[in-house]
Amino acid sequence: MERVRIKDIAAMAGVSVGTVDRVIHGRSGVSEESRIRVEKILEQLHYQPNMYASALASNKKYYFACLLPLHKNGEYWSDVERGIMQATKTYSDFHVSHSLSFYDPYDYHSFTDAANRILEQDPDGVLFAPTRPEFTCPFVAQLNQRNIPYIYIDSNVKEYPALAFYGQNSYQSGIFAARMMMMAAGKETQEVAIFRKINEGIVGSNQQERREVGFREYMAHHFPDCRIWALDLHAKRSDEDQDMLEHFFSSHPQLHNGITFNSKAFIIGEYLLQRGITDFQLTGYDLLKRNVECLRQGSIAFLIAQQPSLQGFNGIKALADHLILKKEVNCINLMPIDLLTKENIDYYFNL
Amino acid sequence: MERVRIKDIAAMAGVSVGTVDRVIHGRSGVSEESRIRVEKILEQLHYQPNMYASALASNKKYYFACLLPLHKNGEYWSDVERGIMQATKTYSDFHVSHSLSFYDPYDYHSFTDAANRILEQDPDGVLFAPTRPEFTCPFVAQLNQRNIPYIYIDSNVKEYPALAFYGQNSYQSGIFAARMMMMAAGKETQEVAIFRKINEGIVGSNQQERREVGFREYMAHHFPDCRIWALDLHAKRSDEDQDMLEHFFSSHPQLHNGITFNSKAFIIGEYLLQRGITDFQLTGYDLLKRNVECLRQGSIAFLIAQQPSLQGFNGIKALADHLILKKEVNCINLMPIDLLTKENIDYYFNL
Repeated sequence: MERVRIKDIAAMAGVSVGTVDRVIHGRSGVSEESRIRVEKILEQLHYQPNMYASALASNKKYYFACLLPLHKNGEYWSDVERGIMQATKTYSDFHVSHSLSFYDPYDYHSFTDAANRILEQDPDGVLFAPTRPEFTCPFVAQLNQRNIPYIYIDSNVKEYPALAFYGQNSYQSGIFAARMMMMAAGKETQEVAIFRKINEGIVGSNQQERREVGFREYMAHHFPDCRIWALDLHAKRSDEDQDMLEHFFSSHPQLHNGITFNSKAFIIGEYLLQRGITDFQLTGYDLLKRNVECLRQGSIAFLIAQQPSLQGFNGIKALADHLILKKEVNCINLMPIDLLTKENIDYYFNL
Repeated sequence: MERVRIKDIAAMAGVSVGTVDRVIHGRSGVSEESRIRVEKILEQLHYQPNMYASALASNKKYYFACLLPLHKNGEYWSDVERGIMQATKTYSDFHVSHSLSFYDPYDYHSFTDAANRILEQDPDGVLFAPTRPEFTCPFVAQLNQRNIPYIYIDSNVKEYPALAFYGQNSYQSGIFAARMMMMAAGKETQEVAIFRKINEGIVGSNQQERREVGFREYMAHHFPDCRIWALDLHAKRSDEDQDMLEHFFSSHPQLHNGITFNSKAFIIGEYLLQRGITDFQLTGYDLLKRNVECLRQGSIAFLIAQQPSLQGFNGIKALADHLILKKEVNCINLMPIDLLTKENIDYYFNL
């Protein structure tokens, strides 16, 4: 069908082009009678307004509040931030802006405090990385009540569905990690290691917990006799890492394969490089600079990636699509489970 | 800096808002004197017109001619087509349309004939998969002469740079394929097989040739003693595949690993399934339905993918960005080298 022009609608309704334009864009200055007449014709013609033109013409401003785990520059969440900023820039013609705030992932109350500060700001939309469901729930209850759309990134909280979720299927990701690691292990299937970062029993991420569940399930099924050691490094006492690794490796001289489910494989990778250990194959997550450097140097065999910048970008895009361009938004958006080695890392798409 | 408004420019130039608008959008109806005055101010202010609004306001139509290798529905190039169609739809507000034509990749004259027909259509832009450089050259010489921008997808022709190229680094992709295949091979490193599709000595794709070069280089370096067998299946006589595979596998009873550099790994994968051969690990390319089915069933261990739909989409997008939105376009766009197994295939991003 040929596109219906505003001119034609105006002629049919017996009003001016300006009046039709006002009705379509929801602006004032139109008599009730004209509005009804124009709307009826729009409906009959199944008129699809050009939402770009419509949004560009509007002067409404949109403010999105983003809440992420506290992190240092160059850590995993910096990539998510980059995607958020790029999206705000992309949608700048539509008067979109954002704020970033942070919570301590090892302290659940910190999430609640940050969430309350966001509610005070009365944003048009919210994007955040959920903490445990019981601490996420009161926040989203408030958002729902105020009719503020929100986006989950990193991990989903199925009990309280968001407008959209962007993240990996962490359980399946753990299964994939186990398959690749054990393939690389060749004959060395007697024992493997899991390296964690923990603060007072808190892993600090829903994702990491579920990856380990998937990993252990694959191992139980395919390598039931493989012994799985775990080393818990302190999340807030990095200065102890070296000694703990030293002790761990010297206590397990036959260990040749290991994995981290957080983004800090470089802690082990750099240790291996420094000690000149070349018979240990390490699998890790996420393309932090220090991880990638270990991958290139050979102390990390595999990195599994999950497009963090795209998660941030698409989260903001979903808010803009929903609120501004009135497009339908897909609710569950599972990110790819990407395998990187030193041979293909240079060609990986990173937003 | 605050965005400069047309109103401000009009005031500074002492002309009407309509006049500024006409100058920005390159429309007629402005005196030479006013045009120069407005342009000078625009330049001084480094004015960035809102290209979306500008393009939406224009009535110019854009016609892009696309030329791909001839293929059946469901084969590799169908995915490229899908990307092209999706891009045209995405840019429909800007009056973009496209045509698709095809050439026989095993007959170089077929490319020349199809290229000539495109030149007769006088398109605004061209997107195509190059054949060998010597047959690609006359076409792009004509396009350059007529100032028609063109996009390469799949393989690049470095001697004649296009506005943009979208495709994999095929040489590196072959190296990656070799690494993964040999890792999965474990101890079985005495012999491997390469399966080709060939018509009268023509492989029919620049990409496939270069992947094999990369693969052989990795093997020569890391597994110099590994014997590499090659089986050339007929590109145009599929009915002979079965017998040839039968003969090949019975002549090489110790062979446990193989690779195809084209998108038709399913020919071997389906043969393995049918014969109940489970001790052969096959690596292939591209996510054709039949390939993915073999991956899930276990007769293909790895598929390497390269985002064909995105190549098609981005090719059209590059033409639109360049011609319509006046955005800068990146010239060399190397696609990711993605590894898919049955564990992560469900989460792969396919446009």
